[in-house]
Amino acid sequence: MRAVAEHRAVVLSLVEPLPAERVAVGSALGRVLAEDAVAAVDLPGFDNSAMDGYAVRAADLAGAGEETPVVLPVDGDVAAGDTARHVLAPGHALRIMTGAPLPEGADAVVAVEMTDGGAHRVSVRLEPEVGRHLRHRGEDVRTGTVVLTAGTRLGPGHVALAAASNVAEVVVRRRPRVTVVSTGDELVPVGGHLEHGQIVDSNHLMLRALVEAAGAEVAAGVHLRDEADAVRAFLAAPDGDPDLVITTGGVSMGVYDTVKEVLTADGGVEFTKVAMRPGMPQGCGRVTASGLPVVTLPGNPVSSFVSFHVFVLPALRRLAGLDPDDDGSFEAVAGASWSAAPGRTEMTRVVERDGVVVPSGGQGSHVLGALAGATALAVVPADVATVEEGQALRCLPLLGHHRGCG
Amino acid sequence: MRAVAEHRAVVLSLVEPLPAERVAVGSALGRVLAEDAVAAVDLPGFDNSAMDGYAVRAADLAGAGEETPVVLPVDGDVAAGDTARHVLAPGHALRIMTGAPLPEGADAVVAVEMTDGGAHRVSVRLEPEVGRHLRHRGEDVRTGTVVLTAGTRLGPGHVALAAASNVAEVVVRRRPRVTVVSTGDELVPVGGHLEHGQIVDSNHLMLRALVEAAGAEVAAGVHLRDEADAVRAFLAAPDGDPDLVITTGGVSMGVYDTVKEVLTADGGVEFTKVAMRPGMPQGCGRVTASGLPVVTLPGNPVSSFVSFHVFVLPALRRLAGLDPDDDGSFEAVAGASWSAAPGRTEMTRVVERDGVVVPSGGQGSHVLGALAGATALAVVPADVATVEEGQALRCLPLLGHHRGCG
Repeated sequence: MRAVAEHRAVVLSLVEPLPAERVAVGSALGRVLAEDAVAAVDLPGFDNSAMDGYAVRAADLAGAGEETPVVLPVDGDVAAGDTARHVLAPGHALRIMTGAPLPEGADAVVAVEMTDGGAHRVSVRLEPEVGRHLRHRGEDVRTGTVVLTAGTRLGPGHVALAAASNVAEVVVRRRPRVTVVSTGDELVPVGGHLEHGQIVDSNHLMLRALVEAAGAEVAAGVHLRDEADAVRAFLAAPDGDPDLVITTGGVSMGVYDTVKEVLTADGGVEFTKVAMRPGMPQGCGRVTASGLPVVTLPGNPVSSFVSFHVFVLPALRRLAGLDPDDDGSFEAVAGASWSAAPGRTEMTRVVERDGVVVPSGGQGSHVLGALAGATALAVVPADVATVEEGQALRCLPLLGHHRGCG
Repeated sequence: MRAVAEHRAVVLSLVEPLPAERVAVGSALGRVLAEDAVAAVDLPGFDNSAMDGYAVRAADLAGAGEETPVVLPVDGDVAAGDTARHVLAPGHALRIMTGAPLPEGADAVVAVEMTDGGAHRVSVRLEPEVGRHLRHRGEDVRTGTVVLTAGTRLGPGHVALAAASNVAEVVVRRRPRVTVVSTGDELVPVGGHLEHGQIVDSNHLMLRALVEAAGAEVAAGVHLRDEADAVRAFLAAPDGDPDLVITTGGVSMGVYDTVKEVLTADGGVEFTKVAMRPGMPQGCGRVTASGLPVVTLPGNPVSSFVSFHVFVLPALRRLAGLDPDDDGSFEAVAGASWSAAPGRTEMTRVVERDGVVVPSGGQGSHVLGALAGATALAVVPADVATVEEGQALRCLPLLGHHRGCG
């Protein structure tokens, strides 16, 4: 049997980062930079006040204190957005607002709370040091500095930094487009009547949701019956102009495993057993007839879900321009003891809380109840038959379980 | 000064969960259930095979082993999706596929790997126990069982479970709609030419991104100049038919703080200082002229960003039907020592890795560079002036830093 890491590497070898495109920074949330973003302005763009108060020369307030206030004439106001170039006369003050440009000649700001707030004359109860409450031009970012590096997925803070640096457009990777194919004569669309022997095609909706949760686009989604001609024709020219095709079902040891039959005949796809539980039957390759990369997931819902996270998600990351190895995995401690598959890497569905993981319920490959409650996969190495309480485990987060989005 | 928890409670008191609507389960990713989802079918829906192999009566294989194979006649195949009701004759076998319905009379399945795989006669090298490789009707979920409870935000696993239970539609809360208002004469749209004293209106794009990352909708977004009439008119009838209005800027101690001036006159909004750094100047209430809840955030970008997470996000959670206290917060250990604001709750922007947090850079309220690199806010209590390395801290995750989406 093939090791998990080996199969993952074979899947990854099928894809490359997608072409770049230019988008407005306001539409770039969640996108991945293909090029560094470079500041177009200094941040701040000019020396300015960090407080509402009075712009002064510090030396004019020598000796000012609670008991010894110093009074200065106020020559006017400088508001935020005031584009005039004010000059502060020696021995005078200008009232200044947070973010307003520092007048020429001023070297400190006194907060309004340390004064009587006067509009024409101000009584100041503090001797400020030079530079007090000032922000200097370029102290955060200098024009021409790289503010965000290629490979960054843009969150709200990144959008703010790029925008503040007056970067109106960013160069990002095109979003990966995935066509989802569920196969099997037993499948009925959700809400349909189920005859004896039929089940709902839940994998179809699950895989669409996984693709979306990964930040990719569902290019198309179809259900195909176990008919070799139909499967062959679809895979030769899949709907949706996808970058990647994922199938579910029809890859195991059965005599009606049509995906395996068709793609084995095609010759571009290799089917294998991976030493993993759940999710042993796997396949991947490039369909000769279409040239497109395909990953064939098993039909058991839990196997399909786990296999998506372990094999498809790294490929989507690489397509999107992310580091496939930067998978958000984290170390946690087992909060219980449980048995695992000897000789296979067990992907236990767990609930994580403050660094402690416990299985989320029954671990059968068809048991969706426990899957829905899980927040991570605990990776139990192949040489571990029993996880001991307190044992450290590497864990893969599950898509849709955002910290901070719940 | 008002404590953080108190101001948060006042903001929360302004909102209630939004009305429910019915959506197709395939469109429900990320939505929050307003009602429990109840299984419409048993899971599995019928006794079925967990393996590709042969359906048998276990007793017919008494004594079968590697050296003592037992040969049974094979009467045909049962494929997944076969809706016929097969009956297994005593002393015979039926070839069966994974997920195919168990024939009447069969009580075990032998995996194909333990046989010679024959189509007409099969040689079996194992005596199976009764129930081997069977999944029983309803063993995962029974019809009528609550599979997902109200208040759950639907991830891909939840979609799979609901769909498999043949729940075609779910009842979810309407998405919160937020109108974003940035204020200030100094603000210029991103990409524009900056005069001396002007800055880019990055808060506008940042707050839009934060609203989207929280799973809410931007109902409308505007920039208003510091003109009382314009601000008053907009807040009396804001664009976009929002559930909540958030403003940024104009709430501090300045003489041009128009939001504060207009809403103080309106009478429905209270302005206050919150014992938090950054983000001291805050306001919230219900605009008398419109009846709409409003949260007025400070204009410093970092203050605005932090205040959104601490005060607006809980309100969005409540509107969406989530528990506002279920905020994904986690305990971490300080990986460095740093000073904090005495007497104020310090929200240090930190990078978290495997349960250890370190400040992400300069902590000034205008320093976006460090903000963009942060993944969480470490909550330093007001009575802590210095965070010691090794100290445990409660942390709030930042929106857009999904585990598993990066």
